[in-house]
Amino acid sequence: MSYITPDFLLNSPEAKKLYQNYAKDMPIFDYHCHLSEKQLLEDKQFSSIYEVWLGGDHYKWRLMRNYGIDERYITGDATPYEKFVKYIEALETAFGNPLYHWSQVELAEYFNCELDITLDNADTIWEWCNEYIKVTNMTPSSLIEKSNVRHIFTTNEATDDLETFALIKEKFDKFSVTPAFRADKILGIHLPTFLSTIDTLSSLTHPITDIASLESAVESRLKLFVEIGTVATDISLERVLPVTSREEADVVFKKMLAGDTLTSSEIEVYQGYITYYLLRLYHSYDLATELHLGAMRNNNSKQFKSIGADTGYDSISAMESTSLLSRLMDRLNSEDSLPRMILFNLNPKMTMELVSLAGCFQDGNSRGKIQYGPAWWFLDNRQGMSTHLELLTSIGHIGAFVGMLTDSRSFLSYPRHHYFRRILCDYLGGMMHRGEITSDMEMVGRVVRDVSYLNSIRYFGIEE
Amino acid sequence: MSYITPDFLLNSPEAKKLYQNYAKDMPIFDYHCHLSEKQLLEDKQFSSIYEVWLGGDHYKWRLMRNYGIDERYITGDATPYEKFVKYIEALETAFGNPLYHWSQVELAEYFNCELDITLDNADTIWEWCNEYIKVTNMTPSSLIEKSNVRHIFTTNEATDDLETFALIKEKFDKFSVTPAFRADKILGIHLPTFLSTIDTLSSLTHPITDIASLESAVESRLKLFVEIGTVATDISLERVLPVTSREEADVVFKKMLAGDTLTSSEIEVYQGYITYYLLRLYHSYDLATELHLGAMRNNNSKQFKSIGADTGYDSISAMESTSLLSRLMDRLNSEDSLPRMILFNLNPKMTMELVSLAGCFQDGNSRGKIQYGPAWWFLDNRQGMSTHLELLTSIGHIGAFVGMLTDSRSFLSYPRHHYFRRILCDYLGGMMHRGEITSDMEMVGRVVRDVSYLNSIRYFGIEE
Amino acid sequence: MSYITPDFLLNSPEAKKLYQNYAKDMPIFDYHCHLSEKQLLEDKQFSSIYEVWLGGDHYKWRLMRNYGIDERYITGDATPYEKFVKYIEALETAFGNPLYHWSQVELAEYFNCELDITLDNADTIWEWCNEYIKVTNMTPSSLIEKSNVRHIFTTNEATDDLETFALIKEKFDKFSVTPAFRADKILGIHLPTFLSTIDTLSSLTHPITDIASLESAVESRLKLFVEIGTVATDISLERVLPVTSREEADVVFKKMLAGDTLTSSEIEVYQGYITYYLLRLYHSYDLATELHLGAMRNNNSKQFKSIGADTGYDSISAMESTSLLSRLMDRLNSEDSLPRMILFNLNPKMTMELVSLAGCFQDGNSRGKIQYGPAWWFLDNRQGMSTHLELLTSIGHIGAFVGMLTDSRSFLSYPRHHYFRRILCDYLGGMMHRGEITSDMEMVGRVVRDVSYLNSIRYFGIEE
Repeated sequence: MSYITPDFLLNSPEAKKLYQNYAKDMPIFDYHCHLSEKQLLEDKQFSSIYEVWLGGDHYKWRLMRNYGIDERYITGDATPYEKFVKYIEALETAFGNPLYHWSQVELAEYFNCELDITLDNADTIWEWCNEYIKVTNMTPSSLIEKSNVRHIFTTNEATDDLETFALIKEKFDKFSVTPAFRADKILGIHLPTFLSTIDTLSSLTHPITDIASLESAVESRLKLFVEIGTVATDISLERVLPVTSREEADVVFKKMLAGDTLTSSEIEVYQGYITYYLLRLYHSYDLATELHLGAMRNNNSKQFKSIGADTGYDSISAMESTSLLSRLMDRLNSEDSLPRMILFNLNPKMTMELVSLAGCFQDGNSRGKIQYGPAWWFLDNRQGMSTHLELLTSIGHIGAFVGMLTDSRSFLSYPRHHYFRRILCDYLGGMMHRGEITSDMEMVGRVVRDVSYLNSIRYFGIEE
Repeated sequence: MSYITPDFLLNSPEAKKLYQNYAKDMPIFDYHCHLSEKQLLEDKQFSSIYEVWLGGDHYKWRLMRNYGIDERYITGDATPYEKFVKYIEALETAFGNPLYHWSQVELAEYFNCELDITLDNADTIWEWCNEYIKVTNMTPSSLIEKSNVRHIFTTNEATDDLETFALIKEKFDKFSVTPAFRADKILGIHLPTFLSTIDTLSSLTHPITDIASLESAVESRLKLFVEIGTVATDISLERVLPVTSREEADVVFKKMLAGDTLTSSEIEVYQGYITYYLLRLYHSYDLATELHLGAMRNNNSKQFKSIGADTGYDSISAMESTSLLSRLMDRLNSEDSLPRMILFNLNPKMTMELVSLAGCFQDGNSRGKIQYGPAWWFLDNRQGMSTHLELLTSIGHIGAFVGMLTDSRSFLSYPRHHYFRRILCDYLGGMMHRGEITSDMEMVGRVVRDVSYLNSIRYFGIEE
Repeated sequence: MSYITPDFLLNSPEAKKLYQNYAKDMPIFDYHCHLSEKQLLEDKQFSSIYEVWLGGDHYKWRLMRNYGIDERYITGDATPYEKFVKYIEALETAFGNPLYHWSQVELAEYFNCELDITLDNADTIWEWCNEYIKVTNMTPSSLIEKSNVRHIFTTNEATDDLETFALIKEKFDKFSVTPAFRADKILGIHLPTFLSTIDTLSSLTHPITDIASLESAVESRLKLFVEIGTVATDISLERVLPVTSREEADVVFKKMLAGDTLTSSEIEVYQGYITYYLLRLYHSYDLATELHLGAMRNNNSKQFKSIGADTGYDSISAMESTSLLSRLMDRLNSEDSLPRMILFNLNPKMTMELVSLAGCFQDGNSRGKIQYGPAWWFLDNRQGMSTHLELLTSIGHIGAFVGMLTDSRSFLSYPRHHYFRRILCDYLGGMMHRGEITSDMEMVGRVVRDVSYLNSIRYFGIEE
């Protein structure tokens, strides 16, 4: 038996009751993740605990690097077994790190394996789990179904193929998978891939020669997403930019198409306008926007060249976005074009700035129209979530909060929802216990159910 | 009976003793608020629980907006009863928000109403409280007296009429009301009202044609404030500006008087100098300055046009003020012209910067000459106050702290002082309980009394 | 008996066991401090409790200033006894401040004095401690030996005399003292002392006329440090600067040598290059770099003129260093020239930025190659250390952490290591107690021993 008991993280009788009676059995709606819809459709049995547990999960890779493990055992040419053992070497003393908890829960939940994850137990775990994968025919869809997941939003670029989603709909009926529309590659005029993105977009729609034809191409792609059920969009920005004019952006865009090199201020002109354009567009289709702020990506260019993006070399950006976000939102709001927005913020120094700013653009059409999003990525841990709940409730409203997501690339990550729910119940139950809020379990339990699942369902207008 | 007991927020026997024996019965000195001295002088019976509880309190409006309540029920044309019910709808699950506590305490304290604030109880509360207002003839002064308030500083612009204060002095003898001098409209050269402010100031003093005549006009108004007892001044800045020269400021000011439009750097030239001038002036009259930093105001221009300023559309500014504040204070200090200052900071990311900076400009003439002010506005909540106490005491001195204010527009807000005192006693009592400080109750109690009341009395040189 | 018991700060049975069995008796390695090697070599008996306890300790001076004590009793002409009493006046109610704890522990540990530090006890303490100094012949080395200190790194400028270290080695055999190499005065081209620093450096090496001869002079000094055992270097920056070219720096340096005045951007050109150069140099000698970020120094120029630097007038800088540090580290890493680095950060708003950035530049050659350093200076207190541990473990790895230092100018400061160890054990023991990590005491104890002492020994490659 591992140290994880049914009352894990629940430090009061009230917290335990809230979790058992209101949180535990609520379905999961994972409204932002990076799962591969193709891998899901394919639904192949996993080859080993290594593949499903460690392959592709850069959270785990970072932990290994922080413990001084050589890259050979992380993304290099070591065997899956060697990498597995090295991960356990790093994990067994990673006290305070969420992976220490997540990994243990993943083994219990999906592999029925309750052994403490230690080097001493490594071989037993390796054999047990690999056997378990075979015996239970563990595939992506089996993990999703076991996790009581009802809805998933993947994140897909405007140019992505949408056929897979129709096939998934045919194949699986216990859960839905819908793409969130993302135009980051179209925003990314500074990227080496930009012109080929425009080419692809053009080939999927019509010739693109200026901002007007770019806009109509984007919109025609968006329509196809909406037709298959898309209700959410994603934008990721290291920093919010000033809104610029369509005319200025047109000049820059044409310059780029002509093969010229852009200055950094020209890049900002283009991106400032397109961000604004996209938000207006999303508003006109009544789509919620998930705005991701505060990541500084690919810090280590040597490793970027070697193993590419999204491999664990991003960090938290110091860039200030608050003033410009205020101006952007105010402009859209003044034009009656401000979409519902979830502000995902990676930098804790901005938390209070953004929670207080969100409160300036609410309206009565939606409960929590402008959401301060959950503790995310580097903040998706006990400390981050506790602080998030304290700050959010201090100047916002817990009852309006849409709750958790995984943002994950791993099919094993759903226990993170329950991890969050435990922290939520501990927070609310602790206040009950200390006599700081009502003792009416049903009233507090209603909020637990809302934040665990129902608020997000309502926010995105998904059928339960 | 509501969930609030006499031991509310007091989690150790020591905390309870400190609160009961040293904090509870200390009088209140509210050294910064936005109460209307005219309304107080008029002292009319409140028309309903709506008027006294919700009318004008934008903290409560924000909570409603965050919960998705339509503006019609907040500042719109719904009836007082409808608005009251909608507030309760938002409040009943606002767990963690200070309004959840404050509102409950306000009903208990002023209306003898101990019902949990829930939709189920809404009608009973409405009738009970309205009846209570009539039966007890509830007026502004009755609330102040019931609250054991001894002194109040309102905040008044340089051009405000001062006669009301003399009349208040005649009418009420249980408490004093004194204006803090504020020249924000004179600083506000970017405001559309600036020229009319100068006109008014001129008509109250003498023709104003340049910086010299502006300065003497400001000073002659200040003298009138000082004559009726003013010992405090207020300045509010989104960001501290570099100090500029009088000559430069004179040029800009004359340009403005001539009706020209100013550039943003000209605005900063004027404001940089005037801020410096005012602080020197305040020092020469031995007035304490309450410097308010870190608010980004009127984010929502649509609502600003519709219902004006101070209606709940401000947020926390990301602007950096620390370096420039260091330069400003250093210059004044080098000129032996640094007034006593209370630094009110709205952005938690600056807390440690400013607490450590304050420690660089202390002197032996005053205990805590440069104060890091209390957790204020968006930070005036349990999380904000606890963090504030931890950080302040970590590198400052709890025994020098001038303690709490309300910053409020509501006559019901005095329980916020007791809310703070409970958190203070819980903090100190908790340390006693865990054996981290002396067990000498009298010595810790002395600090409690000082921070609750006596330090602020001494700091402002008010007779007890 | 004072309030400090053997279980001080240890709030669970597990925390107590960890501290007693794994932390308490580990030796101390103080890998960064400002002790005077000359004073240590001289090893004179202290003249009074004032000299050893208060003389030179600007942490204590700040506390007195924050409490409104006149400078006469701090650095002025009052008698040692008067200053001692005034310190106690400030200290007796400094609840929450680490000096409240440190001072009490210092008396217990070094003077066998367990009286509560209060004004009532001041005279008794004064007499007791002064007697104790004489009876025990208290000298710098006796304090170090009593504290179980095994290794000390002082911080020394490139031009400092190194002979003292050889003499210390001869004289004392229970502990080692080694200089960390610091080139801050050579970086400080804006300082009035710069040209005389270059003169001194030149007289110790060879004529310096350009960047090339400057570099070789610095390197030849560094070699001498390395010969006597130096394995660490220090750099202190208010803000990281962009890397500039050697050619540009050469132009600026020659301009300076020619006696011209530099612009602030020229200063940055020189400093940006030299910082980069030094880090490459340190890498080539396999020296770890302790990078100190986030101090804004000498805010109070009046006091700077009066009593100089390092007297308690520094504060926390608001300057953003994260983006530029990313660029600097990335460049060095791409050139295979990134040294092992400990990032000491004074501004808590940057903590998560820098912990996440550190994780982007790890490699398998060293456990925790890039360290996020301990809670330091203004953060060296209970709140700062607890928050530090929570954030560090949330996205880093506790098992790789090199642990605490004193950064102190006082020979009495070693209990700060035990203060940290108590907080560490309370953090880990608390998680054990709540069932959040393994109950295997030996496994957690291993981490305690590593963080208390062994990790730093390994990191710097010191023989145990």
